[in-house]
Amino acid sequence: MTAAAIDFWFDFSSPYSYVANDWIDALAARHGRTVRRHAILLGATFQAAELKSPVSYPIKREYSIADFGRSARFEGLPYELPATFPIPTQNAARIFWWLHDTASPQAAADWAHAAFRAYWTRGVLLSDAAALKALAAESGLDAEAAEAAWNDVTWKQRLKAENDAAIADGVFGAPFFMIDGEPFWGNDRKAQIERWLGSGPF
Amino acid sequence: MTAAAIDFWFDFSSPYSYVANDWIDALAARHGRTVRRHAILLGATFQAAELKSPVSYPIKREYSIADFGRSARFEGLPYELPATFPIPTQNAARIFWWLHDTASPQAAADWAHAAFRAYWTRGVLLSDAAALKALAAESGLDAEAAEAAWNDVTWKQRLKAENDAAIADGVFGAPFFMIDGEPFWGNDRKAQIERWLGSGPF
Repeated sequence: MTAAAIDFWFDFSSPYSYVANDWIDALAARHGRTVRRHAILLGATFQAAELKSPVSYPIKREYSIADFGRSARFEGLPYELPATFPIPTQNAARIFWWLHDTASPQAAADWAHAAFRAYWTRGVLLSDAAALKALAAESGLDAEAAEAAWNDVTWKQRLKAENDAAIADGVFGAPFFMIDGEPFWGNDRKAQIERWLGSGPF
Repeated sequence: MTAAAIDFWFDFSSPYSYVANDWIDALAARHGRTVRRHAILLGATFQAAELKSPVSYPIKREYSIADFGRSARFEGLPYELPATFPIPTQNAARIFWWLHDTASPQAAADWAHAAFRAYWTRGVLLSDAAALKALAAESGLDAEAAEAAWNDVTWKQRLKAENDAAIADGVFGAPFFMIDGEPFWGNDRKAQIERWLGSGPF
């Protein structure tokens, strides 16, 4: 019997998703689990939940921005606040689903790593068509095909369906994890996830 | 030279403050630090920051309530969601400051432990005058004097001044910590606080 996969929802524009995306595979592997990634748009879940980004509250903004970098460095990750933040990430997310469905979940995961790293360490604007095509090429993808995919209604609808499914599953932020039916929200639930995987419900 | 104290702000109605209140002393002591407690009213900081409690967002409510208990159990603490939550905590907070200023910071810390434990494990209504007097007596305090204190303008103003000072210091939630000028918000920043105390800025 195979242990159930860990569902992991993320948005490329979420710094805590960038951090969690880096540790989730190794953590899952240590406990004989696999990871099922879901690229979504946080804006859609914020809208459904009537929430806002933490940086949209003036008093929290300065703290949050400092905490992004501190949380990345805590995990030993390179980090640099992009000059433009937040950004719309639907095109990068559509590339994820295009790769997921036409190549493999691993190809999509590789893209997730590349896109997160590009935006959160070099400020590569995933919202800019030319920058995104260049990143796709740099990542070994067919850049023209990637651009065609993000403009294709098939992948637009695929992403929308994933957003809707995430909201239906109770996802209201990112990173968000579901493990054996137990929801965990936030990069800062790593220790709880580790204990859950190691010794079960607590 | 004595290492600087850790400032710790909390509200008795905050479940994550209850959890953090339990581990902060031992963590500080491991690193040769002391803790300076500040009882505040989260409502005042939420108002200043235009924020709301997580349980006030319908989609987050169920998750948040489950996470309260999970986060307490993660730290090995007894926990039971009070039948009435949240509650106004100004009287319990005024007792804290009355003890702090007329007895000692340690007496106030002892009260903080007692009041947190009473509300978060037995649902003792800190907002109810009779229940609060009974808890004060049970905690070895003069219950009549405690009641007189929470009705006294001196302690009302003391608490208000602490709320104002907290907001001025950038506190926008609880638990909130300030260590050597570095702010940490949330029970879930425990691991980052531990590293900061152990090896300095990162």
